[in-house]
Amino acid sequence: MTMKKTKGGVCAPLGFLAGAAGCGIKNGKVLRDDIAVVISEVPARSAATFTTNKVKAAPVLLSAANVKSGRNRAVVLNSGNANACTGRRGLEDARAMAAAAAGAFGLKPAEVLVCSTGRIGVPMPMDRIRKGISALKPSRSGGAAAAAAIMTSDTFAKEFAVEVSVPGGKFRIGGIAKGAGMIDPNMATMLCVLTTDADVAGPELRKLLRESVANSFNRITVDGDMSTNDTVVLLANGRSGVEPPAGVFRQALDEVTRALARMIVKDGEGVSRFVEVEVRGAASQRDARAAAEAIANSTLVKCAWAGGDPNWGRILDAVGYSGVAMDEAKADIFYDKLAAVKNGTAAKTPFEKLRAVAAKKAFKVTVDLRLGAASYYVWTTDLTEEYVRLNLGE
Amino acid sequence: MTMKKTKGGVCAPLGFLAGAAGCGIKNGKVLRDDIAVVISEVPARSAATFTTNKVKAAPVLLSAANVKSGRNRAVVLNSGNANACTGRRGLEDARAMAAAAAGAFGLKPAEVLVCSTGRIGVPMPMDRIRKGISALKPSRSGGAAAAAAIMTSDTFAKEFAVEVSVPGGKFRIGGIAKGAGMIDPNMATMLCVLTTDADVAGPELRKLLRESVANSFNRITVDGDMSTNDTVVLLANGRSGVEPPAGVFRQALDEVTRALARMIVKDGEGVSRFVEVEVRGAASQRDARAAAEAIANSTLVKCAWAGGDPNWGRILDAVGYSGVAMDEAKADIFYDKLAAVKNGTAAKTPFEKLRAVAAKKAFKVTVDLRLGAASYYVWTTDLTEEYVRLNLGE
Repeated sequence: MTMKKTKGGVCAPLGFLAGAAGCGIKNGKVLRDDIAVVISEVPARSAATFTTNKVKAAPVLLSAANVKSGRNRAVVLNSGNANACTGRRGLEDARAMAAAAAGAFGLKPAEVLVCSTGRIGVPMPMDRIRKGISALKPSRSGGAAAAAAIMTSDTFAKEFAVEVSVPGGKFRIGGIAKGAGMIDPNMATMLCVLTTDADVAGPELRKLLRESVANSFNRITVDGDMSTNDTVVLLANGRSGVEPPAGVFRQALDEVTRALARMIVKDGEGVSRFVEVEVRGAASQRDARAAAEAIANSTLVKCAWAGGDPNWGRILDAVGYSGVAMDEAKADIFYDKLAAVKNGTAAKTPFEKLRAVAAKKAFKVTVDLRLGAASYYVWTTDLTEEYVRLNLGE
Repeated sequence: MTMKKTKGGVCAPLGFLAGAAGCGIKNGKVLRDDIAVVISEVPARSAATFTTNKVKAAPVLLSAANVKSGRNRAVVLNSGNANACTGRRGLEDARAMAAAAAGAFGLKPAEVLVCSTGRIGVPMPMDRIRKGISALKPSRSGGAAAAAAIMTSDTFAKEFAVEVSVPGGKFRIGGIAKGAGMIDPNMATMLCVLTTDADVAGPELRKLLRESVANSFNRITVDGDMSTNDTVVLLANGRSGVEPPAGVFRQALDEVTRALARMIVKDGEGVSRFVEVEVRGAASQRDARAAAEAIANSTLVKCAWAGGDPNWGRILDAVGYSGVAMDEAKADIFYDKLAAVKNGTAAKTPFEKLRAVAAKKAFKVTVDLRLGAASYYVWTTDLTEEYVRLNLGE
């Protein structure tokens, strides 16, 4: 098989349309598009994963119910209001959004999934939402507009697509996503709609999506805060007529989910550095993950990175309080390929060389616990004054 | 019994001396005192609690071994260097510090405990340390100087003492502490030396210290990062001749530990607000604690407080991802006595009134899960741009 990047985002696969409109959801002023739809021209199979937060927004509850059929053709999305912590009324509003979209596009309400992002605890302005939905004109060229409409504090729209050639023909996978704040594994304040024209059976679609999310969106953390609205949806309409082998489909899906996940981290609020943290040599996979996430979520480690300081003491400290099995006297730490720590104490690498790595826009920190064979990586960021400024509240 | 605040810090109890000296530990320049000693003129009983971080600084390892006898008369402390992640040499240096102090004050090395705070991963400058120890002149008026010598990024020295009258006479408990960064339960980058002239049996001393630490230093979190050096030491020399009932001693000890813990939180790096977070109505004590700590360590919640924003959505979100048993539709949230959330959605309190509470220097957030009878509180802070600036590294 050969795989190449292609254009069009969610509209790259055959038979998918997208569109966006502005309806002033946040405060009544129509300054930008804030409602979007992604829709398959033909019936489609579907799979989705949702936040594991016990506080779940109304659209998450509705979409989780609607996706059980495995047959969904459309996703309607909005920014400006998360429809979270809105009680029974919130659930009615999410249902009304699905019904309005179904009416507009000739579908059954149960065929529609709903995603919302934005402020928590504020009722949805349903008059505006209905007006916005009726203004949507989905087309084959609407992917970019849909990607832009779901942005909140994102600074750029996120879309990605690949085209894959296999012996039987070509299929495509595309996606749009938004992130920016409340970004933590399982998953993030993130919404992602993926589309494909490959023909994939329902159970396989669900399994491959779950695995691909585990290797992409569940590997990212900006601030350790997991949102109430996280949703990743995958619609597969089979329009290419190609039934790719599971391994090939998974590889292509990973290409899209990982590209979008990296974009979310790089566009995290106030972020100045992209850091891959890998813990290896751990006694178990669980330990490797716990240690990697403790480092990636350490306020002090992230502040050091913001200052370009390769402060390995804070990294070792975070591993120490993560509770994983470790022998301090065995631990090694690397910045890219340079040893910062050997056997639990300072390595011989000159500080200036380590500092040069920590001052880069992107680098990798590896912790080798030298206890076992398990490893895990996460993608994360520094923590800047700009992040704090952006989150001081209204 | 009657209890009153008194002066003198660790020297308030009879028979305790303290002193400080400057020896340029950090970079050779003697700009301030950076070494201190607290010593009992007569043999004393001892108890201590230490960091639960798996990466433990050398002085923690040494002091944990030396305190097992329950008979320690002196604590030597330094700022400027944590003697952490320093391997075998670090342990030798900690031993040499104890031996030098023992030599200077006519004690056995095993009677001396050692506490260090400051940079991680840098070998101790032992020549300077020895010179500093030999310059120490402990006296009955040296408590304040010792409190000042152990400061790192602290902005004020922390000492507190009480005098308690009971039928048999009077006894006193005093303490000094330092905190500022890496402050998290179990315990914090914090050192604390407590002294008392009460006569308390060894096993009781250990039990009461453990309980009192659980209700004070283990309730505080600034940044969620637990240090490698946390130590709380209690020396009891019995010089008052008073054997207080356990309940009375515990009450007095709590008065001192809680006062010092609050000072540490208020003096957290860049802190502008002191927040008590209480979770009640939880299904279990463990849940209450997990939820309270999730809120107190949420980057987004803390940034909102920095901005004076009573962002209850972020609080509910943090409870949701803490993994505790909850029913979103039952949860209530209060800012001081004002309801922000009732039954999982916005309460009727006008936003401006909530904002007025969140803009105060100190306030309380209560989350009532209305599921059970368990409750837990922690003391925490906001997260400011100043905090990030202070932690950008060298």
